Amino acid sequence: MDDHGKLLTPEDFRKAAKRVLERSAYDYFASGADGQKLRKRNRKAWDAIEIRHRVLVDVSDVDTSTEVLGFKLPFPAMIAPMAYQRLARDAGELATVRAAFATHVPMIVSTMATVTLEAIAEATPAPKWFQLYCHRDRGITEDLIRRAEAAGYLALVVTVDAPVLGRRLADERNNFDLPEGMTRANLVRYVGAAPGGGPDEPGTVGGHAGPPLQGSELADLFRTRQDASLTWKDIDWFRSLTKLPIVLKGIVRGDDAKRAADAGCAGVIVSNHGGRQLDASIPSARALPEVVAAVDGHIPVLVDGGIEWGADILRSLALGAKAVLIGRPVLWGLAVAGEAGVRNVLEIYKEDFQRAMQLAGCASIADIDSDLLTIS
Amino acid sequence: MDDHGKLLTPEDFRKAAKRVLERSAYDYFASGADGQKLRKRNRKAWDAIEIRHRVLVDVSDVDTSTEVLGFKLPFPAMIAPMAYQRLARDAGELATVRAAFATHVPMIVSTMATVTLEAIAEATPAPKWFQLYCHRDRGITEDLIRRAEAAGYLALVVTVDAPVLGRRLADERNNFDLPEGMTRANLVRYVGAAPGGGPDEPGTVGGHAGPPLQGSELADLFRTRQDASLTWKDIDWFRSLTKLPIVLKGIVRGDDAKRAADAGCAGVIVSNHGGRQLDASIPSARALPEVVAAVDGHIPVLVDGGIEWGADILRSLALGAKAVLIGRPVLWGLAVAGEAGVRNVLEIYKEDFQRAMQLAGCASIADIDSDLLTIS
Amino acid sequence: MDDHGKLLTPEDFRKAAKRVLERSAYDYFASGADGQKLRKRNRKAWDAIEIRHRVLVDVSDVDTSTEVLGFKLPFPAMIAPMAYQRLARDAGELATVRAAFATHVPMIVSTMATVTLEAIAEATPAPKWFQLYCHRDRGITEDLIRRAEAAGYLALVVTVDAPVLGRRLADERNNFDLPEGMTRANLVRYVGAAPGGGPDEPGTVGGHAGPPLQGSELADLFRTRQDASLTWKDIDWFRSLTKLPIVLKGIVRGDDAKRAADAGCAGVIVSNHGGRQLDASIPSARALPEVVAAVDGHIPVLVDGGIEWGADILRSLALGAKAVLIGRPVLWGLAVAGEAGVRNVLEIYKEDFQRAMQLAGCASIADIDSDLLTIS
Amino acid sequence: MDDHGKLLTPEDFRKAAKRVLERSAYDYFASGADGQKLRKRNRKAWDAIEIRHRVLVDVSDVDTSTEVLGFKLPFPAMIAPMAYQRLARDAGELATVRAAFATHVPMIVSTMATVTLEAIAEATPAPKWFQLYCHRDRGITEDLIRRAEAAGYLALVVTVDAPVLGRRLADERNNFDLPEGMTRANLVRYVGAAPGGGPDEPGTVGGHAGPPLQGSELADLFRTRQDASLTWKDIDWFRSLTKLPIVLKGIVRGDDAKRAADAGCAGVIVSNHGGRQLDASIPSARALPEVVAAVDGHIPVLVDGGIEWGADILRSLALGAKAVLIGRPVLWGLAVAGEAGVRNVLEIYKEDFQRAMQLAGCASIADIDSDLLTIS
Repeated sequence: MDDHGKLLTPEDFRKAAKRVLERSAYDYFASGADGQKLRKRNRKAWDAIEIRHRVLVDVSDVDTSTEVLGFKLPFPAMIAPMAYQRLARDAGELATVRAAFATHVPMIVSTMATVTLEAIAEATPAPKWFQLYCHRDRGITEDLIRRAEAAGYLALVVTVDAPVLGRRLADERNNFDLPEGMTRANLVRYVGAAPGGGPDEPGTVGGHAGPPLQGSELADLFRTRQDASLTWKDIDWFRSLTKLPIVLKGIVRGDDAKRAADAGCAGVIVSNHGGRQLDASIPSARALPEVVAAVDGHIPVLVDGGIEWGADILRSLALGAKAVLIGRPVLWGLAVAGEAGVRNVLEIYKEDFQRAMQLAGCASIADIDSDLLTIS
Repeated sequence: MDDHGKLLTPEDFRKAAKRVLERSAYDYFASGADGQKLRKRNRKAWDAIEIRHRVLVDVSDVDTSTEVLGFKLPFPAMIAPMAYQRLARDAGELATVRAAFATHVPMIVSTMATVTLEAIAEATPAPKWFQLYCHRDRGITEDLIRRAEAAGYLALVVTVDAPVLGRRLADERNNFDLPEGMTRANLVRYVGAAPGGGPDEPGTVGGHAGPPLQGSELADLFRTRQDASLTWKDIDWFRSLTKLPIVLKGIVRGDDAKRAADAGCAGVIVSNHGGRQLDASIPSARALPEVVAAVDGHIPVLVDGGIEWGADILRSLALGAKAVLIGRPVLWGLAVAGEAGVRNVLEIYKEDFQRAMQLAGCASIADIDSDLLTIS
Repeated sequence: MDDHGKLLTPEDFRKAAKRVLERSAYDYFASGADGQKLRKRNRKAWDAIEIRHRVLVDVSDVDTSTEVLGFKLPFPAMIAPMAYQRLARDAGELATVRAAFATHVPMIVSTMATVTLEAIAEATPAPKWFQLYCHRDRGITEDLIRRAEAAGYLALVVTVDAPVLGRRLADERNNFDLPEGMTRANLVRYVGAAPGGGPDEPGTVGGHAGPPLQGSELADLFRTRQDASLTWKDIDWFRSLTKLPIVLKGIVRGDDAKRAADAGCAGVIVSNHGGRQLDASIPSARALPEVVAAVDGHIPVLVDGGIEWGADILRSLALGAKAVLIGRPVLWGLAVAGEAGVRNVLEIYKEDFQRAMQLAGCASIADIDSDLLTIS
Repeated sequence: MDDHGKLLTPEDFRKAAKRVLERSAYDYFASGADGQKLRKRNRKAWDAIEIRHRVLVDVSDVDTSTEVLGFKLPFPAMIAPMAYQRLARDAGELATVRAAFATHVPMIVSTMATVTLEAIAEATPAPKWFQLYCHRDRGITEDLIRRAEAAGYLALVVTVDAPVLGRRLADERNNFDLPEGMTRANLVRYVGAAPGGGPDEPGTVGGHAGPPLQGSELADLFRTRQDASLTWKDIDWFRSLTKLPIVLKGIVRGDDAKRAADAGCAGVIVSNHGGRQLDASIPSARALPEVVAAVDGHIPVLVDGGIEWGADILRSLALGAKAVLIGRPVLWGLAVAGEAGVRNVLEIYKEDFQRAMQLAGCASIADIDSDLLTIS
C-alpha cells in the first residue's frame, strides 16, 4: 500500500477500510442504530467542549501514562470490546491483541469474538479484560466467566445497554450474517444447549422455531439467546461467582452509576454503544459529567463514543473520566493493515493525545481538570 | 414488489409511496403550509430530546399496551384522522380500517373521508373515533354527529386548529382537486344545502358565487363551508348533542388545554396539524410540556407531528402524553401496499417502540417518565 | 406571462424578477452589505419566534385594519422607501404609488426616487410619507422638506442608519450606476450646488474632484453629498422647519428610541436597512423588544427586515410593533408586472396575514400580544 | 491582472492567492490543525456578536487611530507574525514591510522569516516588533533578542501557544518543506549548534538522528529545536535580558493573562494561532472577555483569529481589545501582488473598519464599548 504512510487520522483509516472491506462488513462495523443520529451527536457533543489551553507550562517531558483498576495504561485509552473482528481481517482478534501487546494498550475482548478467548489469551501476555453478554442459560454465562478467569483475563466488562439489540438498518438490508467459515468462536460449544439452539453450524447459532423474525441474524441471536431480564441481582450473582473486578458498560445516568458503585462494581463505562443501540440516547460527552458527579470518585469512570482526536481524550479526562475506549478506528486499522494497522491507529491516538496535552499546557494526567474547559 | 421486505422505516415507505403516487396526491399528503418549516422543526424538536436510558431493568417481558379514554391500545398510538385516503389507494379508508382492526390500533376517521363513515364502520368491528369539522350549517354538523353515533364511533375528535385552511402551496400549484369519481363521501348528501352549495358533482362540493377565490379547491371548500366562528360555546353545544367523549385536536397552549378540561372535554391532542396549518406555530414536542402541566392529569393528552421512530413515542410519553397519533406514514403504507402496507407500518412502529422501551430500561408504560429525559 | 397566477409568494416574485431584471439592477435591489449575513440572520430571527396559536376563537370576521399616526392601514404594513424604482420597471414609483392607492397601503417615497416626489403625489390621492436623506447642503434638505409638504406628503421618515453607505460588493463588481435616461429625479435640480457637484447629467450627480474613490457610484454620491454629521440637533431643526410628524428609520436600540420619543419624534422604525448597511448589526426581530420596551407605548414602533410571511407581521405585532414595512418584494412585483404586480404582492401579504391571524386565533389586531409567543 | 481592482475583500484575495500559489504553499498558509474546526469556530464566534448600532452621531470626521504600547496605529490593527513569506512572493517579508511602512501598520516579524530580521529592518524605517520562538539552545534565543534590539525592533512578541507544533495534516500529506534556495534566514547561522543540528543546507535545519519522525519537516524542526520547557521563569529571564516590552501571544485564559501582567509583560495577544495549534481550543472571540476582565486594564489586550471584516475589529474593541492582528489576508495580498497587494489588503481593512465605526455610530475609538453589543 503505497500511501500507507499517508493514513494520518482515524478518518483516513476509515476511508481506507471502506475501500478494502466487503460492503456488509463495513456497514456492520460502521452503522449506528435507526436514524444514525447519535453517532453525529456524539461527535458534536465533543466538539462543543472548548479547551482553554494553559501556556508557559514545561511540557518537554509529558507523561501520558495512567492507571485504571491497578492496570498501567501508556495513555488513557483501551481497546473497546468489538465483535466479529475476523470480518475485518482474517487474523481478527489475534492481530488486535498482538497490537495491544506491542503498544501496551489493554484490549477488551468481546463475547462475540471470532477467535476463542483462550486463543486470544495465548497469543500474547498482554493484559486483557473480557466483555460479557449474559446468556439466558446462566450455565453458559457462568462457564464464560470461568473460562475468562482460567485464561487470565483481569476484569469483566458487563455490557448493560444491550438487553436487546439496537436496530441497524444496514444489516437488515444486507441480510448481514457471518460468512461461511467464521463463527462466534466462544459460543460454538454451547450451540444446542440454549433456547432456540440448533445444530452447530459455522456462522450461525442454531435456527429458531416459530414465525420468521424480522431484523438481522444478530438481532435474532440476541432475541433467542441473550438475557433481556438481566438486573442488578445478576450483578450480585456475578460478584458471587468471581473475584474479577466487574465494570459495567453502557451507563449514562448518575443514579445507575451510583448503584453500580454501591453494588461493588469496580468501574463504569459511560457509553451509548457507539450509537448502535438507542439512537435517541444522550451523547456520551453530555452524560459523562452526571456520572462522574454521582460516583464522586469512588470508582473510575471510562467513556466511549466518537473519540476521534487526542483532544477528545483530553476533554474526557477534563470532565472526570479516567480513560476512554477506542472502538471503530481499531477495526479500520485492522482492516487496512492487520496488527500493524491497529498499532498505527493506537500510536496516532497516543501521539495526538500527547500533543493535545502539550498544547493545552498539561505535563501530566493530574494536570487535566475541569478548569481547562469553558463552562457553558 | 420485490423489495417490499426492505421497507424498514416510515421514511422507506414515504420514498416508495412517492414513486407510486400521482405527484398531486403525494404533494397533497406530504406538504406542509407556507414555507414548510414546521415539518422540519417538529422533527428537530423531537431529536433535541435526549433519553437517559436506564440499565439492568428486566425488559424480557415488556408490556407496551395502554389505555386512552377506556380504550385499550396495543401500544400508545392511534391512526391520525386524514382526508382523502382513496387518493393513496383505491380501497382508501376501508383498507386502513382493516389494518386498524388487524393490529388493534384505533383509527380516527376524517370528516373528509372518501368512503362514508358508515361503510368504514361496517367494514370491521374495530374501535373507531370520528373526526369532526364543524360546518356553517349546524344541521349538517349535527347530522354528522348523529351518523357517527349510529355507526358506533366511540369518540368525537373536534379539530380546532383549522378555522380556515392552511396554505399548501403545492396544492395551489397543482390545481389540486379530487379526481373524477372520488368524493368527500360523508358530505355528498349535503351538497346544495349550505352557503355556496351547488349541484352535487363528483369531486366537488358545489361552485361558489362571486369573484374567483385564490388557493386550492380544498381551501375554497373550507372558506365556503367550514365554520370559522367555532368557539367554546360550540363545544358546549356538541356536549349537549352527544354522550360521546369529545377530544379537541390542535391544542398547543396550556390555557386552551385547561379550558378544554373545564369544558368537559375528554382529552386534548397537542398538534399543529403536521405543519399544515400555521407554519409559524410551535413544534409539538415543545408545546407538549405546557399542555401536560396545565391539564394536570385531569384529562389525557395525546400528541402528533413528526412521530417517526419508536423513540419519539417514548419521548412523548416521558413528556406526559398518553399516546401519539401516526399520520402520513399510514398513508405511505396505504399507497404502497394497501391494508398490508398500513399493517406493516403500524407493526414497525410497535416493534420500534417496544425496542425503545427495552433499550431505555422501561418494562411497562408506567416506567416512562420525565426522569428519562435530559433537562435542558 | 402564462404562469403569473402561480406567483404565490414573495419568493416566487423574487425568482421571477431575477429572470426579467438586468443583473446589475437585480443585484442592486437584492444585495446586502459586506458578507450578506444579516439578510439571513434577519430571516432566522423571525423563524425562531414560535407562535402558540389559540383555538376556538371566532375568526369568521377578522379585522386586519389598524392605525399608525392617525393613518388607516388595511393591514399593518406600509411600502418601505426604496430608491431607483424605474430600474425595476419603466413606470417606476408611479406604478408603485398606483398600487398603493388601489390597495390603500401607504407608500413611503424615497429621496432617491427616479420620479419626482411631485409627480408621484399627483399620480394618485393615496396617502404618502416622504423618506428624507439629509444633504450636506442644508438648503437642499430644507427645500426637499418644503416640497414634500407642498406635495401633500403626510409624514417625514428620516433615515438614520446611513450616515455613509453600506458596502454592497455586487454593486462595486457591477460598476453599478443609473442607466442613461434615468435620474435621481428629486435631486436633479440641485446638481452643481453642493460640494463635489458638477454638471447635471442623467444618471449622475456630478463628478468629483480629487483621487478616484473606491466603491460604487452610489457610495460616491453618499460620500460627497450626504451628511454624515447628522445628529439629534438636526432632528430639532427638522421639527422647527415642519409640522409633519417625523419618524426615524434605522433604530435598533432602546436608548436611541427613547431619545427619539423625547425629541418629539412621532415614531421609530426598527431597521437594519434590510441588511444593506452594517452587516454585523442585530437582526430586527431581536432588536424590536428592546425598542418597544424603551418607548413604552409613547410612540409607535414599526419594523422591517426580512418580513416574508403573514406570520412575520403577526410576530412583529406580538412583539409590540404597530406595523411592518415591506421592501424588496414590492420591487419584485413591480419588476414582474408593474402596478398589477405590486398590488398582487400586497394582496398576498394581506391575505397571508389575515390567515395567520385566523390560524393563531386572533380576531382583531388588539388580540395580538406577546402571550402568543414562546418565551425562550 | 485585469480584475485586480475587483479584489474587494480578504476572501477575494484568498481565492486569487490560491490560484497563483503552489498547492503546498497555499496549504501551509491556509491550513488549521487537525480537523480544522477552530478556523470555522473562530469565524462563527465573531458572527455571533451582534452590534446594536447607534444613530445620529456625527461621524463625518471619524478618527480610527489608536495607540498600543506607545505606538501609533492608523487603525487598531497590526500585521501578525507569519513564517516563510517568500513562499508567497519572492520579495517575501521585504514586500510586507514596505507595505507596512506605506500604510503605517506595524509589522510583527517572525523568527521563521525567510529574510533576515536585519534585512527587513534595513528595508524601511517602519516600526516593527519581533516575534520570538524560544530555542532549546538559550544562547541562540539570547542572540536573537540581541539582534532584534540591534536592528531597532521595538517590542518582543513571545509565542506561548506553540511548545510543540500543531498538526497540520495538509503539510504532512504534501511533505511540505521550504523549497531549494529558501531558508529560515534568521536561523541559518545557528545550524549545527543545536541538538539534532546538522549541516547547514538551504531549506532545512539539519537532519536528525534516531528513528524517522512523523509529521512535517516543520514539526521536526519544532521537536528538535524549539523549547517545550518554556515557563514563566523564562519570561523573567527575557525581561532580565532586554528592556524591550514583552508581549505574550497565544493567551486564552484570564489567569494566564493576569500572570502575564504580574510578570511585567507589556501586553497579551488572545490567540489560538489562527486555529493552527490545538483545534479544540476556544475561539478567540469567546476567550477575549475573560482575558480583558482579568487584566482589568493594566496591560493592553490584542486579539487575532478570523478577523475578516472591519466589523470584527469593532467587535474586538467593543469586547475590550486594543487592536487586532491581521494574518493570512496579508499573505494573500502578498501572493497576489506583492507590496501593492499587502497595501491593498490593509487599506481594505482600514476603510472597512472606518465604515463600520460610522455605521455603528462611533466617531472615535473611545466610543467603542461593550454597550454596542448584545448581551447573550
